[in-house]
Amino acid sequence: MSDQEKLQGQKESLLESLAGGGESLATLVRKVHSADLAEWMQDLAEEDVWRVFSSLDVDARAEVLEHAEDALSGRLVERLTPHQLKEVVETLPADEVVDLLALADEGTAEQVLRSVDDERARGLRELAAHAPDSAGGLMTTEVVSVPVGTRIGDAIKLIRTEGEEVEEGQGLFVLDGGGRPVGYVSDRLLLTHSIHSTVDEVMVEPIVVGVDVDQEEAATQIEHYGLTELAVVDAGGALVGSISADDAIEVLEEEASEDILKIVGASPVHQTRLPILERVIGRLPLQAVTVAGGLATAAIIDLALGDGGGRPTQVDLLRFVPIVIGLAGNVGIQSSTILVRAFATGEVEPDREVAVVATETLAGGVIGLICGGLSWAVIAATDTSAAPAAFPLAVGAAIAAAVTFAAMLGCVIPVVCRRTGIDPAVVAGPFLITVSDICGTALYLAVAHLMLER
Amino acid sequence: MSDQEKLQGQKESLLESLAGGGESLATLVRKVHSADLAEWMQDLAEEDVWRVFSSLDVDARAEVLEHAEDALSGRLVERLTPHQLKEVVETLPADEVVDLLALADEGTAEQVLRSVDDERARGLRELAAHAPDSAGGLMTTEVVSVPVGTRIGDAIKLIRTEGEEVEEGQGLFVLDGGGRPVGYVSDRLLLTHSIHSTVDEVMVEPIVVGVDVDQEEAATQIEHYGLTELAVVDAGGALVGSISADDAIEVLEEEASEDILKIVGASPVHQTRLPILERVIGRLPLQAVTVAGGLATAAIIDLALGDGGGRPTQVDLLRFVPIVIGLAGNVGIQSSTILVRAFATGEVEPDREVAVVATETLAGGVIGLICGGLSWAVIAATDTSAAPAAFPLAVGAAIAAAVTFAAMLGCVIPVVCRRTGIDPAVVAGPFLITVSDICGTALYLAVAHLMLER
Repeated sequence: MSDQEKLQGQKESLLESLAGGGESLATLVRKVHSADLAEWMQDLAEEDVWRVFSSLDVDARAEVLEHAEDALSGRLVERLTPHQLKEVVETLPADEVVDLLALADEGTAEQVLRSVDDERARGLRELAAHAPDSAGGLMTTEVVSVPVGTRIGDAIKLIRTEGEEVEEGQGLFVLDGGGRPVGYVSDRLLLTHSIHSTVDEVMVEPIVVGVDVDQEEAATQIEHYGLTELAVVDAGGALVGSISADDAIEVLEEEASEDILKIVGASPVHQTRLPILERVIGRLPLQAVTVAGGLATAAIIDLALGDGGGRPTQVDLLRFVPIVIGLAGNVGIQSSTILVRAFATGEVEPDREVAVVATETLAGGVIGLICGGLSWAVIAATDTSAAPAAFPLAVGAAIAAAVTFAAMLGCVIPVVCRRTGIDPAVVAGPFLITVSDICGTALYLAVAHLMLER
Repeated sequence: MSDQEKLQGQKESLLESLAGGGESLATLVRKVHSADLAEWMQDLAEEDVWRVFSSLDVDARAEVLEHAEDALSGRLVERLTPHQLKEVVETLPADEVVDLLALADEGTAEQVLRSVDDERARGLRELAAHAPDSAGGLMTTEVVSVPVGTRIGDAIKLIRTEGEEVEEGQGLFVLDGGGRPVGYVSDRLLLTHSIHSTVDEVMVEPIVVGVDVDQEEAATQIEHYGLTELAVVDAGGALVGSISADDAIEVLEEEASEDILKIVGASPVHQTRLPILERVIGRLPLQAVTVAGGLATAAIIDLALGDGGGRPTQVDLLRFVPIVIGLAGNVGIQSSTILVRAFATGEVEPDREVAVVATETLAGGVIGLICGGLSWAVIAATDTSAAPAAFPLAVGAAIAAAVTFAAMLGCVIPVVCRRTGIDPAVVAGPFLITVSDICGTALYLAVAHLMLER
């Protein structure tokens, strides 16, 4: 059952139990879907994360690790003993196992690999050799395949004997003599056709990608052709694994978020879960480029004005309006884009709104101070106009104020939109930029005037 | 087989055949996947679209309509006779049929509905009553369900008797006495368990959404819980349909594109397929807001300068730099975002790059002319500074030049990035804005100076 209020109730009960009240943790977690547990655990303190995880049985632990973002899985895997990790690994499909072992330290991963049976270990090592963002890194090797001419009854028997390993599959591939996929038969087709027919009679043409292609390219193929499973082949065209539609969904969502955030200079994804310092460091390169561009623009304007010494200070202030507008616009659109995307993917539910607005504004403030300081230093060192001595500091302080305000605006506008039922994406861009341009310029001029009048 | 070069070859053969050479159309189209046909047909002239479609058999027609974007399906459905449409409708799942009939004129849709059997017609009418962007609008009603306690052997028999209607399903829902879903059993579990077991023994807890929730919310549930099928229920909790992972992929991709493009003020999606006039009209609201914001900023600066009559024209030019930077930045980032997204979703393959750069630059040029003209008119009507009579026209012309240049830059940079293997998303945002700020300001000042010197 997925229902906003029920979920909120479950989350509150969990927090209550962790605080020592209400139901026991072990009873509670059995009622919660592992995907929800994995999401909520991201917001818990280190010790509570571990308490929740320890209260789960092996199957539930495996499921939580399967649903968790890498940051959480990594924290958990670090604390698991090799024996505990081995237990979990036994219940997971190969592609998930490889992702988990990549997060463990090398010694532990090696111990786990030695403890599983030889055939599986070989499969896991092969899988681990592929680049994580390639089709090979995304695929599972635990896929059912039969030779051309196999009867449906025999194909079903094969699926039964493979057992748990292929329990998440949805069909089988038909291979020619060279191991190359020439057909795909969904489980539904196996169920609805006579066991005496051959797979050749019901199979559809498979869609195939090379094991080295980018995972986004593979996921796009699944979307383009509307597939449930995509065949992955080696350089010789032989089947080595398959990628399912639900693997593709995650990749496409992640890549879409990544593209959006890269365009506004605020990658990596899941910014609202990052420590403030990491957010600031991640976004500084864009701001540095903007400051450099703004200073270049100010220099061009200086040239165009052509009367270096004789003009009033207020005119010189105008030369730096492009920096203010550029920085404030960037910081504002970063915050608003992060929130719009986090709303869309469910990363920020209403109960985290206030915390996210506070931390984003703080991050914007730090960025504002750094960029203001940078501008101050560069202007003080290079400006040859006849402006008063306090001028560079006034410009720097005014930039910091305008940028902090824009970051706050960039968070508040999407939150207000969501609460009032307006589409945040429409307002977060155009409207935000315009308001931040006008307010930023006014704030900049006001702060600078105040400081220069003293 | 999906392989870039093979596909390019197929597309060229198709164009050759349409031009009267090479293989016959009917032979060619049999070798091409309907998803690729549906994509290529978007770029063909009206008559050629129809020639390709007419050369397909009924099954292939249905598949092309299933894969096509609404714009193409709409054009095709309009030309189909009720009889032809009925043939196609018979081979498609209910959710696809409803989407198609929504594109046909009412008389034709009614004729088709009367020609299918009563039970299906009733299902289709119910489905059509849901909002297109709700879970109800996305789901299919052709879903298998069994009561609690059903033996697996009997469940399989039921799937067999439902026949083609449920051929695209991947499992079944287990219902309580009130028709409410209490379990889900994948086909793989049916295949791997004894026919004498009951579904209760193997079912997993189903995830459920209400029929009226937004389709994005439903798709997000599928991603969050890693589902192959999501149950859709009415207000009483009874099962009315299901949504599959591959329906969810399309929704999430579409919504991600929509969010990105809304933030930069360039929705709807698939901009590169729109006529230039529609692109311009769609993006004008944001530019109008930017012009208004820029004029407001210029007024604030006018106030701050406080010496209306006495300052040189060059200082007045600076008051409008924010408009130039704002507009050029917007137009540039719109073009670059459209291209980055179109690259990611496969909307623009290398063979369309040149055409897209040309049309996007043209659209940017038209937007530049309109915004320049608007600025000219407003400045001429309201400005009270002592600038010469040619000043408003010079500002307008300079704005138009800077905006057109930015649009061109916004297209060329992503294309160059893709060709040289640089990630276009990283460069398209920060780098683009900075270059467009510097060049835009320089171009603006240069054009204005030239015009004012004459």
